[in-house]
Amino acid sequence: MSALTIHGGRIDAAAARYPAAPVPWLDLSTGINPNGYNPAALAEGDPYALPSPSRLAALEDAAAAAFGMTCGAIAAVPGSEIGLRLLATMGLPGPACVVAPSYGSHAAAFPNATPVAGDALAGAEWRSALLANPNNPDGRLLAPETLLALTRSRAADGGWLVIDEAFADCVAGASVLPLLDADDRVLVFRSFGKFYGLAGVRLGFVCGPEAIVARYRERLGSWPVSSAAIEIGIAAYRDVAWQGATRIRVAAQAAALDEVLRRHGLAPRGDCPLFRLVEMPDAGLLFERLAAAGILTRPFDYAPDWLRIGLPGSADALARLDRSLGGG
Amino acid sequence: MSALTIHGGRIDAAAARYPAAPVPWLDLSTGINPNGYNPAALAEGDPYALPSPSRLAALEDAAAAAFGMTCGAIAAVPGSEIGLRLLATMGLPGPACVVAPSYGSHAAAFPNATPVAGDALAGAEWRSALLANPNNPDGRLLAPETLLALTRSRAADGGWLVIDEAFADCVAGASVLPLLDADDRVLVFRSFGKFYGLAGVRLGFVCGPEAIVARYRERLGSWPVSSAAIEIGIAAYRDVAWQGATRIRVAAQAAALDEVLRRHGLAPRGDCPLFRLVEMPDAGLLFERLAAAGILTRPFDYAPDWLRIGLPGSADALARLDRSLGGG
Repeated sequence: MSALTIHGGRIDAAAARYPAAPVPWLDLSTGINPNGYNPAALAEGDPYALPSPSRLAALEDAAAAAFGMTCGAIAAVPGSEIGLRLLATMGLPGPACVVAPSYGSHAAAFPNATPVAGDALAGAEWRSALLANPNNPDGRLLAPETLLALTRSRAADGGWLVIDEAFADCVAGASVLPLLDADDRVLVFRSFGKFYGLAGVRLGFVCGPEAIVARYRERLGSWPVSSAAIEIGIAAYRDVAWQGATRIRVAAQAAALDEVLRRHGLAPRGDCPLFRLVEMPDAGLLFERLAAAGILTRPFDYAPDWLRIGLPGSADALARLDRSLGGG
Repeated sequence: MSALTIHGGRIDAAAARYPAAPVPWLDLSTGINPNGYNPAALAEGDPYALPSPSRLAALEDAAAAAFGMTCGAIAAVPGSEIGLRLLATMGLPGPACVVAPSYGSHAAAFPNATPVAGDALAGAEWRSALLANPNNPDGRLLAPETLLALTRSRAADGGWLVIDEAFADCVAGASVLPLLDADDRVLVFRSFGKFYGLAGVRLGFVCGPEAIVARYRERLGSWPVSSAAIEIGIAAYRDVAWQGATRIRVAAQAAALDEVLRRHGLAPRGDCPLFRLVEMPDAGLLFERLAAAGILTRPFDYAPDWLRIGLPGSADALARLDRSLGGG
């Protein structure tokens, strides 16, 4: 099962392990919006020419506006995963802490960091700290004002707070970016693939003080993302109407998922509408039962009593989950 | 003119500087094949799902076969530019040398390296050396056997030879990869965008001993390139017929370009069919004259008597260059 406990989205590995499962598989193993943005603008990127610097600048402007940034710099990266992993090369000061449990790649981003529980971060010793908000996999959402107060309390130490906001688009008011002043030592990662549901495009952003964002630009060079990623990103980040409607839609879908889970005696946790975490002594059995029914969820090798369940993208998908949870 | 001397491909900057030039511009400022591979397979990449690990493995297998690799490892990177720049984080031993003049980003790949002339590399002191073969901008092609002998002569020092083979697909027999043994300390970068003419896709590869390629994988994570890049790469690297026909085609086009250049008293240099370098005291004037005619070539701030001229993609494009060189 190890291929299924590292990252979600491994339908190929699941199908190999459960060959008798009914197809098509229902993939609830990720936190990717199942009703993604219309990908038509991908075709507007010229595949023949090097990505245009002026269109890249337009993308970064559109993203900064969508994020509500009022100061600092932004750089596009080929997926927030790469952005996070490059953090290991950015020379942030130690000692470092990583809030755990969280997204698996955070350990690669800060290889020498001490894991701390989220509640312990304020009292821990660190000059660089990394956390996700909303957190993954438990969906815990901290008020951005709380994180801002934490970073300002460490300003005299030269402390850096790094916030992985991969899922922040889903909840209005979740991001710290609109609150930042120019001298706050906060670095924020954003992901295009989750909320916009286009994880195959590989697009993300790093936002923060000019000097460290410039180090990212230097590390990635003049063409960090594809022409297609630039065009789809410009379209999506400028589409304020879609963003607002989608926030309402995923919240309603998450409420419907919660109702189904509770009806089956499960207690959904978390404030990120794209997934829920459930905790139960026999989570592994539930994973197996759902997989046998062609529904892939996300188990965790470090927490065998957890299961993360992604948002079903339609009433039919939710009904299939409902039937399978009932054993039918 | 500074935007035009850093990298080629800046038609937007050229059009702003020469607003009276006839349109459409003819872009001869890059070394990108003007008759690129059919991009249809881009649409086969699923934009919604995370890129599939098994398809990524298929891409790396297809590329390794096209490169003639018989040992070592390969990892896809989101453009060879990023691959080169990440070299600065790979901990290769010093002292380092970079062959100059060459591709501009090599300095960023090895920030503390000493520049040396190509002929001086064999006699220079280094434990890591970086060069391009064929070289850019002068198109100089060294026999891969020569480079292999050089690296083996440094094996006792633990020396690393890093070869940027961004243009090696264009010339049969140009690559060192088919000659390598498992214990050769040679790292090779390959680019998809040049020979296949699809620079907007952002796809490249790093090839070499397993340990250093594994460091690249760790730095980039599980989804280094887009789903679209994976599918177009699989199609193109498996298309041996297109590769062979294209090598013949670009060689013929380069010969026709040479004939036109010589007829105008220019002496084309280089063995890379995707571009030629010309040297003349008034290269800046020729650049200006061609730009006024809507033809963008590549000037060099460090070598004002050089102009790099990319391969015209059609008889019409070559005829336009011919007329403009004649002053008409």
